[in-house]
Order: sequence, then structure tokens, then C-alpha cells
Amino acid sequence: MATHNIVVIVGSLRKDSFTLKIANALAKLAPASLKLDVATLNGISFFNQDLEATPPADWTAFREKIQKSDGVIFVTPEYNRAIPGVLKNAIDVASRPYGKSSFLGKPTGIISNSPGPLGGVSAAKTLQNVLPGITGPILGQPEIYLNGIGDAFDDKGELTKESLKPVLKQYIDAYAAFVERHHR
Amino acid sequence: MATHNIVVIVGSLRKDSFTLKIANALAKLAPASLKLDVATLNGISFFNQDLEATPPADWTAFREKIQKSDGVIFVTPEYNRAIPGVLKNAIDVASRPYGKSSFLGKPTGIISNSPGPLGGVSAAKTLQNVLPGITGPILGQPEIYLNGIGDAFDDKGELTKESLKPVLKQYIDAYAAFVERHHR
Amino acid sequence: MATHNIVVIVGSLRKDSFTLKIANALAKLAPASLKLDVATLNGISFFNQDLEATPPADWTAFREKIQKSDGVIFVTPEYNRAIPGVLKNAIDVASRPYGKSSFLGKPTGIISNSPGPLGGVSAAKTLQNVLPGITGPILGQPEIYLNGIGDAFDDKGELTKESLKPVLKQYIDAYAAFVERHHR
Amino acid sequence: MATHNIVVIVGSLRKDSFTLKIANALAKLAPASLKLDVATLNGISFFNQDLEATPPADWTAFREKIQKSDGVIFVTPEYNRAIPGVLKNAIDVASRPYGKSSFLGKPTGIISNSPGPLGGVSAAKTLQNVLPGITGPILGQPEIYLNGIGDAFDDKGELTKESLKPVLKQYIDAYAAFVERHHR
Repeated sequence: MATHNIVVIVGSLRKDSFTLKIANALAKLAPASLKLDVATLNGISFFNQDLEATPPADWTAFREKIQKSDGVIFVTPEYNRAIPGVLKNAIDVASRPYGKSSFLGKPTGIISNSPGPLGGVSAAKTLQNVLPGITGPILGQPEIYLNGIGDAFDDKGELTKESLKPVLKQYIDAYAAFVERHHR
Repeated sequence: MATHNIVVIVGSLRKDSFTLKIANALAKLAPASLKLDVATLNGISFFNQDLEATPPADWTAFREKIQKSDGVIFVTPEYNRAIPGVLKNAIDVASRPYGKSSFLGKPTGIISNSPGPLGGVSAAKTLQNVLPGITGPILGQPEIYLNGIGDAFDDKGELTKESLKPVLKQYIDAYAAFVERHHR
Repeated sequence: MATHNIVVIVGSLRKDSFTLKIANALAKLAPASLKLDVATLNGISFFNQDLEATPPADWTAFREKIQKSDGVIFVTPEYNRAIPGVLKNAIDVASRPYGKSSFLGKPTGIISNSPGPLGGVSAAKTLQNVLPGITGPILGQPEIYLNGIGDAFDDKGELTKESLKPVLKQYIDAYAAFVERHHR
Repeated sequence: MATHNIVVIVGSLRKDSFTLKIANALAKLAPASLKLDVATLNGISFFNQDLEATPPADWTAFREKIQKSDGVIFVTPEYNRAIPGVLKNAIDVASRPYGKSSFLGKPTGIISNSPGPLGGVSAAKTLQNVLPGITGPILGQPEIYLNGIGDAFDDKGELTKESLKPVLKQYIDAYAAFVERHHR
């Protein structure tokens, strides 16, 4: 069985963000069929159509990373009832030039989270509206909105909240099957 | 009658963007009770919670500009069925620190646009979900989704599409009355 | 001080719905300046443009109830990440004929709830997209997404969850001030 | 090659609705691998959890129709920037009992329309938020928001707008390939 390379896009720039820790935990929980590459968005500059003729190196590198992948998982916090600007900007960058989205055909996962009760569901809903025109198929089930994430990790960033492990494991296994099916 | 100072936030970085031209046209059409300050988002760096203790000067300047205003109008294109990342980032910046949004209490307008037929309505819908928790009241009517904007301006950026003028004039007059009522 | 008559629209048909119990609790907590009329949606038939020439009596009665009110509060559960069909239908009915929405000018509140953790926030988000074109101003703050509502009431439907009382009281007081300001 | 039976759900009750005409046009344009069953929503009563123990015959019939199908296409107008209440109610009915959605596993298409310019895109966006947890995979591309639909049909309901034919043909062919792939 081939190993599929999956880019996990981290929607927060904070160094110790829960979002990054969730992405790292996913990478450890993933089955052997997936190799997860956790990608932070530091250094990806703002999309500006004026620059498209000679795109900045950071745009090109991010686009190529996505293009070479076999799938993409978005892990995101919720800022103001939507995805953070930094994540939307990275999507804008990789979706261009128009009609040539780097995400096209990539099987796609969406995982939102919050320290509070709402689980970042409004961020996930934003992605459900943004992605259908520019990615491959989006995994619909299980739905996953991770709430109460504030006490889930230890000082070293290791996942210690036992109740969360099967939730993440179930999701990444479902995503692995989804990718398998897509690339068959 | 007092003059109210309104910041018009331009959601596109493109130098000759239709969005900027619409903002400039609004500034000319506004009644005497409003003074419109058209603000582009160049140089506002990405929100990162790690920097909040000593915020970058560009954050502080943008927050102060909003705080000193009597109202805010968002003019935005639609990127991938939502607002551009650059605009969401500026909102994230000005909405923080948590609970101290610079937009609080400011009467707010939303104007979306697109060269195509859809008028950027999905960008406007995103703002309707993002703003209620962090701004003042949002003008609901008239609804305004400007489509076919590609041929509306001449080489100097002047609004020449006659059918668009009364649409913008009706909106800015309604917004002026909304601001008057709010600050009465 | 005048008493303002407010229609509280209950988005669930279930006889013992939490949504109805929340509406009843609000009515008891409301300040003297508001008189809340809790309205269930039983008997409001499906909107069908073909019937508009001679509208059913149930449409006319609901429209008149809204028109005569001084404001409207929507209390809603979340069905499938949006408002229930029965609530959307009632909104469709009262929003017509086109351009003559019965909700026009009515100060509007939105309260979502769920037995689970998400608090019905996606239902509230749907209403934020649906209502701006057809109602009066919408109260933005405090945001209110009531979660864990399953154990909040006793056998007689009385609110017994102490932590919920100040949340509802804060909301209805803020709404009362919003209505006062609007009708001043 | 097997023929796949697809239910086309019509989101408007109006007898001569454009939505119904579009559904009928799709049925004629569909390739031989698909048999389209155009389903209107007349007679499907309101969802009410109290009735679930002994569900009305109209609920059961609709659920069975969906369960027996090989896929579902939603064709919908936009009412008040979302799907009509009648369509949301039918989705609520078929999504229950909880966890036993009749739509589960069914490859799903979404087609919105409007006589005006916006093409019902906000209705499509609502469905993108509602369906992921309760259906099979959702076709993302081509995106299809049919605008200016008011002059597309003759007196007998036949599609006469030439520019619309290839748009619908492209969509139904893409959906057929999507269903083929899913059921392979």
C-alpha cells in the first residue's frame, strides 16, 4: 500500500497554539498509510493580484507544497466567528491564479477547535463555504469541532486528555480511508 | 449639524482595485454630514497572539484610527466565496485584545462587489456573521451587492457608469441617516 | 414609560421543547418595559407563491401579529446546522409579499440553544444571514448561544439552572434597552 | 453499465416554478447512466420530534424514496438569502431519526437559481453548511448558480435559453461521473 503525503495546514501563528498541537497529535495518531507534513503559515505574504505576474517566492513554495501533496487537512481556530485572516490569506494565495487552484483534486479534511464550548464550528462552516470550488472532495463525516481544548496538552505539547485521543484517531482513520478511496 | 468621521476599509490590496475605486466614489457622493477617510490595508501585519503584549506599531495605528472614528464602512471584493484574507486579518487585529474591539459601538456598513454577476454577496454574508459580536449596529437596508463592476470606472478611476451612481448615493445617504440616529 | 409588545417566535414545534421553555423564562425575566407574547408556529402553512393572491388565514394572522408588535425575538434550536424548516417557513411567510416584510423596522433579537455544547450557534448564524434585508436592527451584543440546556428546567418547565438566569436576564435587559433606543 | 436512480428534490412549491422547470430540463439532459425522479415537496408535513414514535405516512414515504435512491440533487430557489422553509423542512424530516439520515452515503448535487443576478448563491451556501453531516459526498465542481432564469423557458416549460443548455449539460454529466465513481 502506497503512503500518501498529506499537508496539515495550521491556521494559527501563535507559537504554542492549540491548533499546532492538535496537528502534531494527528501526525502521531495517523495510520501507516498517511505521512503528515505539519505546515505553519509564517512567512506567507498577503495575496495581491498586482504581484501575480512575478509571484513572491513564499507564494510559489506554498503552492508547490500543496500541489505535490496527496491531500490537505485544515486545522483551525475560530477568530470572530470565522477562520483567521492568516488562514484565509493562505487559501487565497494557493487558490490562484484563477482556475489553477493548487488544492484542486486534493481530498480535504476540516478540523476546528476552541478552548471554549463552541469548538470553532463557525470556522469550520466558513471553510465549507470557501473550499468546494477550489479543492477536491471534502470529508463530511465524522463532523469534528474540538471544544475545551485548553487543558488537553502537557507542557511539552503532548496530548494528555484521554477523551480526545479516540476522537482524533477516529477522524484521521476516516480521513485515511477517504484518501485511499479517492486515489484508488 | 456635526460632521461624522467615517473610516472606509478597502478589502483589496490591488493598486487599481474596483474596491478602492468604489470607496473613493462613495467619499465623493457622501452628504456633508459625513467625512469619509478611505483606508487601505497595506502594511497591517498578521495577527499573532504572541505579539499582543507589545503590539506592532501598524496594529496600534489601525486600532486607533478605528477607535477615533464615528463609524466604519467595509467595502470588499469576494475571494473564494468569502472576504479576502487581508480584510479578515485587519478585522482580527482591530478586534483585539479580546473584549476590547476597536469597532465596538461604531455604526457599520457593508458593501460587496464583483466584476461578475454575484456581486460579492458571499463576502457580505461572511461579514454579517463576523461583525455582530465586535462592532456597533450594522445597517441592514438597503442591501447592496455591486455586480458587473468591471466597466464602471474610467482610466482615472472616476465612476462613469450612470446606473451605479444612484445605487451608491442611496446607500451612503441611508448610512448617513443611520449614523445620525446612532449618535443622536 | 410605554410598554413595548414583543413577539417571541419559538422555532420548535415540540410540545415540551427547550426552546419554548426558554421563551417562557424570558417572558418572566423581562423588565416592566416589555410585554412578551410567546408565539408557537403550529398551524402556519407552507409558503407558496401561488397562494399569495388570496393568502391563507394563518399567514394573514401571523403577519398581522408581527406588524402590530414593537419588536421580535427569535428563539431557536439548531436542526442540521441551521434553523428548523418550520422557523424558516414562518420567516418566509411573514417576509412576503416581496418588499412588504412584516418584520420591517422591528428591533430584532436572536437566541439559539442546544442540549449539546455548540449552543445552536449555526442556527444563529443562519438568522444573521437571513434577517438583515427584512427586519429592523438586530441586537449584536451580548452574543447568546445557550448550550447544555437539557437540564435547565424542572418538570413544570420552570427554569431551575441558576447559572442560566443571569445570562437570560442580561440578554432581555439589553434587548429592552435596544427597543427603548429604537422607539425613542 | 448500471442505471443509477437519482431523486431530484425541488425546493419550491409553486406550480410553475423555475426550480421545477430546471429539474425537468435536467431529467431530459441526463446521460443514459442516470434516471432522474423529480420530486416535489407537496404534502410533506412539518417535522416535530413528538411525532417520531409514530411518524406520519408522508415522512415515511419521503424517507424511503431517498433511501432507495442512488443519489440526490437539490434544486432550489433562494428565499431571504437561504433555502426555502419547505426545503429545509424536508431535509429535517429525511435527516431523522438522529444518526439515521436517509441521505447518508448518497452522492449529492446542489443547484441554486434565481430570476435576478445573484443566482441563489446564498441558498447553495446554506446547503453546503447543512448537508455535510447527513449526506454522502457533495459535488463541488462545477459550481452552478443559475441567474436570470426568468426568461429561460417557453409556455410549456421547455428550456429555450440556449446559453443555459450547456451549463446544465456540463453539470449533469459531471454529476453522473461523480455517481459512477462513488458506486464503483
